[in-house]
Amino acid sequence: MSQKRLIVDMDGVLADVYAHFIQYEKEYTGLIKKKEDLIGVTEEAAFTQTKTYVRSVGFFRTLPVIPNSQEVLEALNTQYQVYIVSSAMEFPNSLREKYDWLAEYFPYIHWKQIVLCGDKRAIQGDIMIDDHFKNLDYFEEKTYLFSQPHNQASPAGRHERVDSWEELRGKLLVKAT
Amino acid sequence: MSQKRLIVDMDGVLADVYAHFIQYEKEYTGLIKKKEDLIGVTEEAAFTQTKTYVRSVGFFRTLPVIPNSQEVLEALNTQYQVYIVSSAMEFPNSLREKYDWLAEYFPYIHWKQIVLCGDKRAIQGDIMIDDHFKNLDYFEEKTYLFSQPHNQASPAGRHERVDSWEELRGKLLVKAT
Repeated sequence: MSQKRLIVDMDGVLADVYAHFIQYEKEYTGLIKKKEDLIGVTEEAAFTQTKTYVRSVGFFRTLPVIPNSQEVLEALNTQYQVYIVSSAMEFPNSLREKYDWLAEYFPYIHWKQIVLCGDKRAIQGDIMIDDHFKNLDYFEEKTYLFSQPHNQASPAGRHERVDSWEELRGKLLVKAT
Repeated sequence: MSQKRLIVDMDGVLADVYAHFIQYEKEYTGLIKKKEDLIGVTEEAAFTQTKTYVRSVGFFRTLPVIPNSQEVLEALNTQYQVYIVSSAMEFPNSLREKYDWLAEYFPYIHWKQIVLCGDKRAIQGDIMIDDHFKNLDYFEEKTYLFSQPHNQASPAGRHERVDSWEELRGKLLVKAT
């Protein structure tokens, strides 16, 4: 049987965009934001200059990694046909930075497994993990909503909410019997 | 009714890779190759140093445009949900060059319509235009094989062969009645 295709988002799933925004916000404006105060607020409303931050050279290259994503995805990569699918086209500087970031933190991901796109409507697979409804809602197969402050006040709807990569490990990794 | 999704390849469909390879081959080696002598030969066998050429800075940014592709795709872009899908990940230098090339020659293509990937197995749509069997063979819907020397000696199989953008205009553009 062929492996199922697992479509994994980068920002907000592998890369901790909030931690980075909080750091940039502090450096640019002196304001100190906390994740727990940003529940149910869009990223654009939560921070004063998100467009400036994401357009600055190095933003995507220096993102922190979401806890446990490296080891859990490495295990899943042996059981699924994994694709890393990231919306990157709005910020063309991010293209090479995202490629280099993946090469550093997820070296077991082959270049054949990377997709950088505008929107995700032309993407297919069997399972999608994403933190944005705008991506999950177009995907017809199984969907996991990865919790981030911007989506935490919204009902997950037909998507299954997960709060961590540990939780994804439990749901997706098939144990040897 | 929603528009059909039209998946359009870049190299060999919008961008004239052979014309560029012929020019690079002449500059690098002095050898003069002609398209008509390269029928049924892979690109790697047709030219002496394809990997060197595609890895050189500017290769993808300076590709000539395939005749009529600009005006025909502009017309199709009003009738289809067009996605430009290009295998680019093997050559990370090409990512930004391909983005900039599209912005120059196909300015009506929005960034949301661009997908740069490794392989195309995670891509879905209703119609695919490509010059490589390795891409078309994984696509389950309607497929057009765009003629290039490397595929011209092969039977098209379940794919429909087209020799030009003029031919694609006739097949795909819905005329007002």
